[in-house]
Amino acid sequence: MTLDRFFNPQSVAIVGASRQPNKVGYEVLAGLLKGGYPGKIFPVNPTAEEVQGLKAWPDLKSIGQTPELVLLIVSAKYVPKLMQECADLGVKAVIIIASGFKEAGPQGADLEKSIIRIAKNANMRIIGPNCIGLMVPGHKLNVSFGGDLPMPGSIGYFSQSGSLLAAIVDMARDARVGFSKLISIGNKADVDELAIIRALGEDPETRVIAGYLETIADGDAFIRQAERISMEKPILLMKAGFTVAGARAASSHTGRMAEVESAYECVFERAGVIRCESIKDQFDFARAFAYQPLPKGPRVAVIANAGGAGIMATDAIEREGLELAQFSDETQKRLSQSQELSRAASISNPIDLLGDALSDRYEFALRTVLNDPNVDTALVLLSPHAMTECAQTAHAIVRVANQNGPAKPILACFLGAGRVAEAVKVLREGKIPPYDSPESAVRTIKALCRYAVWKSRPARVVKLFNVNRHKVERIIERHVRLQQAEVGEMEAKEILEAYGFVTPEGGVATTPEQAANIANQIGYPVVLKIWSPDILHKTEVGGVKTHVNSEQEVIDVFDLMMYRIPKKVPRASILGICVEQMCTSGREVILGMNRDSRFGPLMMFGMGGRLVEVLEDVVFYPAPLTAEEARQMLVRTKTYDVLKGIRGEEGVDVGAIAEGLQRLSQLATEFPHIKEIDINPFVVGREGTTPIAVDAMMTLEKR
Amino acid sequence: MTLDRFFNPQSVAIVGASRQPNKVGYEVLAGLLKGGYPGKIFPVNPTAEEVQGLKAWPDLKSIGQTPELVLLIVSAKYVPKLMQECADLGVKAVIIIASGFKEAGPQGADLEKSIIRIAKNANMRIIGPNCIGLMVPGHKLNVSFGGDLPMPGSIGYFSQSGSLLAAIVDMARDARVGFSKLISIGNKADVDELAIIRALGEDPETRVIAGYLETIADGDAFIRQAERISMEKPILLMKAGFTVAGARAASSHTGRMAEVESAYECVFERAGVIRCESIKDQFDFARAFAYQPLPKGPRVAVIANAGGAGIMATDAIEREGLELAQFSDETQKRLSQSQELSRAASISNPIDLLGDALSDRYEFALRTVLNDPNVDTALVLLSPHAMTECAQTAHAIVRVANQNGPAKPILACFLGAGRVAEAVKVLREGKIPPYDSPESAVRTIKALCRYAVWKSRPARVVKLFNVNRHKVERIIERHVRLQQAEVGEMEAKEILEAYGFVTPEGGVATTPEQAANIANQIGYPVVLKIWSPDILHKTEVGGVKTHVNSEQEVIDVFDLMMYRIPKKVPRASILGICVEQMCTSGREVILGMNRDSRFGPLMMFGMGGRLVEVLEDVVFYPAPLTAEEARQMLVRTKTYDVLKGIRGEEGVDVGAIAEGLQRLSQLATEFPHIKEIDINPFVVGREGTTPIAVDAMMTLEKR
Repeated sequence: MTLDRFFNPQSVAIVGASRQPNKVGYEVLAGLLKGGYPGKIFPVNPTAEEVQGLKAWPDLKSIGQTPELVLLIVSAKYVPKLMQECADLGVKAVIIIASGFKEAGPQGADLEKSIIRIAKNANMRIIGPNCIGLMVPGHKLNVSFGGDLPMPGSIGYFSQSGSLLAAIVDMARDARVGFSKLISIGNKADVDELAIIRALGEDPETRVIAGYLETIADGDAFIRQAERISMEKPILLMKAGFTVAGARAASSHTGRMAEVESAYECVFERAGVIRCESIKDQFDFARAFAYQPLPKGPRVAVIANAGGAGIMATDAIEREGLELAQFSDETQKRLSQSQELSRAASISNPIDLLGDALSDRYEFALRTVLNDPNVDTALVLLSPHAMTECAQTAHAIVRVANQNGPAKPILACFLGAGRVAEAVKVLREGKIPPYDSPESAVRTIKALCRYAVWKSRPARVVKLFNVNRHKVERIIERHVRLQQAEVGEMEAKEILEAYGFVTPEGGVATTPEQAANIANQIGYPVVLKIWSPDILHKTEVGGVKTHVNSEQEVIDVFDLMMYRIPKKVPRASILGICVEQMCTSGREVILGMNRDSRFGPLMMFGMGGRLVEVLEDVVFYPAPLTAEEARQMLVRTKTYDVLKGIRGEEGVDVGAIAEGLQRLSQLATEFPHIKEIDINPFVVGREGTTPIAVDAMMTLEKR
Repeated sequence: MTLDRFFNPQSVAIVGASRQPNKVGYEVLAGLLKGGYPGKIFPVNPTAEEVQGLKAWPDLKSIGQTPELVLLIVSAKYVPKLMQECADLGVKAVIIIASGFKEAGPQGADLEKSIIRIAKNANMRIIGPNCIGLMVPGHKLNVSFGGDLPMPGSIGYFSQSGSLLAAIVDMARDARVGFSKLISIGNKADVDELAIIRALGEDPETRVIAGYLETIADGDAFIRQAERISMEKPILLMKAGFTVAGARAASSHTGRMAEVESAYECVFERAGVIRCESIKDQFDFARAFAYQPLPKGPRVAVIANAGGAGIMATDAIEREGLELAQFSDETQKRLSQSQELSRAASISNPIDLLGDALSDRYEFALRTVLNDPNVDTALVLLSPHAMTECAQTAHAIVRVANQNGPAKPILACFLGAGRVAEAVKVLREGKIPPYDSPESAVRTIKALCRYAVWKSRPARVVKLFNVNRHKVERIIERHVRLQQAEVGEMEAKEILEAYGFVTPEGGVATTPEQAANIANQIGYPVVLKIWSPDILHKTEVGGVKTHVNSEQEVIDVFDLMMYRIPKKVPRASILGICVEQMCTSGREVILGMNRDSRFGPLMMFGMGGRLVEVLEDVVFYPAPLTAEEARQMLVRTKTYDVLKGIRGEEGVDVGAIAEGLQRLSQLATEFPHIKEIDINPFVVGREGTTPIAVDAMMTLEKR
């Protein structure tokens, strides 16, 4: 069922419509009337004959017909009864403005559950509770207390914070930004961000989906749906509560900041969602996405009538990782030979047209750079000098944009306020988004580019490796039966081997002589490790000895461990000592998987070693991974250059690491029981060698 | 001589005053008249009897008295002659609006030199050329074509970009920001950023100094002056042309981005200058500095009437490294027992007063948290709900601020536009700076805190070590005499030893037996290095062998080097082979100094090793260093935790590294001849051990 009844109802009943200004029930009805809603309005008020000039009904039933949309502006305690009335009447869409539900404690949460039950049974949908309502400017529908309707437009906005939505509506009216829909989703008892994103995705009036979220209900579904919809329309999200303190304030999941932030970041990236750091950025981005085509690449041409702004834009372009376009020979020739630009201070990028540039100089320069195949986006900057033709220049830009054949995005930043006000209006009406600083314009170009790159990414093909799934099933079943959440090194390695990983050569010895034999076969140096299902943290009990170099040393280490460890952990059953090949060459990296409570299995990659641990140079990405995604995870670490080999030093087999990540991703995907895996270290050698999973840790979900 | 004649002249002559609208000579005079300048105005125009209703003079002489300030709005070529006339008349202050000087090429540069000469001889000061003039709103003086005067206020602004200044004036009028002075410094032929900063520093009407710069003329003087003035007034600088591409656009110094950016960053930091990333930030910061006291610490209390904004502020506080204040027990008690806050959703920080909060609830909460000794700054957020008393709440905040005894800064962010417009006006008039987003308010608090910390830093005492200065003088003199810019390892180490550094034990051998003897004395392993004043890059010719473990190996390596290296570099004079102790324990770091062409000696510290090289985890700071500054350099690296020792691993002697930096800083300060020093690696062991300068590289300035 779509949300059409909310967005385009033929009739609206307002239960709690009031005659008393400043009451919510008054403001909502007044807003609906002021907006010019053309459908039928049924105020419901048991104590008044008439409300704001309209006939009032004592209750829903007495209306005598079923309103398509019902608003409940009453105390929480009356809501269940009214919901039942709605159900009985066959109402299908209800907006519950009232607060006092889940957000107010356990009692409120129960109340909320009861109304969800009623709605489910009656196949009725709810927006709210604890929300400020809904606006559809194009249909003159304002059932909210968020203020007057903004202009109609193509941005669909939803917000988990009602008051923020009210502020946004106020700012939008001032900045003349147009919206298709504005929805306050409140407690998301029924209609949540996913339902809204889906509805806006299907809505022909919406070109850009934007929203403010504090929590995400179903992470897994979010990824899948958002990814699908992002292919059609950009989704711009402002996610608050990222930091630990912020999350606590939003009373959502708390954890290490880096983790929480990384999880959202990688999920947004996978799904093509554009993350906005502030409402300002979101507005800035949304306007460009609404009106401008996507750039084909990162190369920006800058046109200015003063050095200062051009330099600021150039700094920003380099900081954001975009490129200052290198003009083609033909462009350079055309610019240098032109009459209009004969006085320009610089005809290379950024072009400085000088302070006395009139609109013709701008028009010629803009037209010329847009024709250059080396230019993907044009940024036009203007500082208002005494003789500057602000408005005419704006008209010239709009003119060029309208004739801009193979469409390239054009953004403008006219610095100033009163002196450029008229020009900014011309730009807006001509669908050239105006920015208040070179930096915000460049940030917007970056957002356009990222989305364009995401959209044209190759199809996702997840490779399936040949693995021994049964073996893993058996090991996991045994652990589940025995209620063991932690999988020891032994069996963790068996599982990894079943999925194609190579573990170090070696074996378990029960006598010193046997240990020496194994070591002699492998070759020195070797590692000795205590072998016990009861000892998970071997190092802590002195159960790991590396760099063992001779037969005699193997025998000594064996005896010492067998003597000392049972004293430390008397109850542990010790099966022997594992003698293993020691990897002395190659680079140590970490492969991991952590099943996030919201987003499912997140794959992890990081460089090994203490330094990098301090630097927290790790990357996350949701499973299942494609080959390209696995490779991108590596590329995204700051230490990637070290893997490739720096300063003539030979690099390691990067492809083998990527394959390891893919195999681990397959394991995580096929066994939802596994909560956490850590292969640390995963030792990888030069091109063509087989990397070795030296140590492994695995935890299962507790049931 | 001060710049008083520019800022407060009793009479102004405008050479080139015009009757023709849109000409600069018209706009400047019109602006001066419109601003209501009370002094005498002498338009100079050889072809008109009268200009804009004022009697016009054919030339300066004929005025019959000496104007205190002269504006030259004529073509560049006429400027020298007019300057001479000014000199003859005894004029002391000239603003040259004309362009066509240094910025236009070599001819223009010559012209600029000639006018500087005239000015110097006549003890006359120049602002410009190639500028848009000057504004002093408090004196109704507008000698510029930057538009109408903004409000008088306490921000002194200067800009190297005239057009940017015009845009700023336009924005300031719109945002009702007041200024004491606005100066377009143009080509800075005479009055440069330093003269302006000094003048604004002494100006009683200026509380905050702000400016936009693309280049800094005299870096060394800049550091000293800016540091002195920053103690009195904050200096907020927007420096453009930071990135390589940006610098090229500003045609200033080009270099590696990290280097250029680090140089400015560390110099700004040393001098207490607050760097602004955008004009928006600069405006935001300037207003808080102009009207609010400095915070005593980083603890922020947040008061909001909705969850959303509070969460956004909390995220920003954590990101900026500030703290969310922990309210005292008394505050918590007071908040929880109050009538006003009985309905608040959260009385812990961030306080959520709920959407129906009226001004009394805000007033009580704000008053309470300001009284809490755990709170350093209060941030008040408001989202306009239907019933919100926006303007009254603004009045309440102003009222509390005026009674705010031991003054703490109060910042406000009222989200929205039209619905909060009146409130924002009330805040502005009450000197509570209003912000357009929680993020920009928090960024501003961070700037206030950083400046407060800088201002209260301990007095800078640079320790002077006992050193053997004469020895260094002798070595350097010899190099200068022989015109050798590069100082070899041998002598570089001698210099370092003279300044108290310890270098590895060892000696130079001329026979294999001698080498073996030295090695046997030191103990193994040792390092062998080719010893030649002609070979600076020893590794490249195979002239370094580490990990030499036995007498036999020493003899073999000796012979191999002696056989192979003369073949590779036949003309090098080889003095022998140096046998040195090899540092096998301890951590490798890099100490360095690079004499920056603008800012003098910049000290450098970084972790050793390839990984960190990739990460570019290095820190710069201008010499001479105090002990605290040296320590701060270490603390500021991302890898500092590794030095202190992580995960139970023993740390190294951090104090010994700091001392090494101070000694190197003393060397760089005492010998301006030294251009560059690199001690790499500087091997430092655990607490109490002596670090060793294992290898060193030194370059002298070319003469």
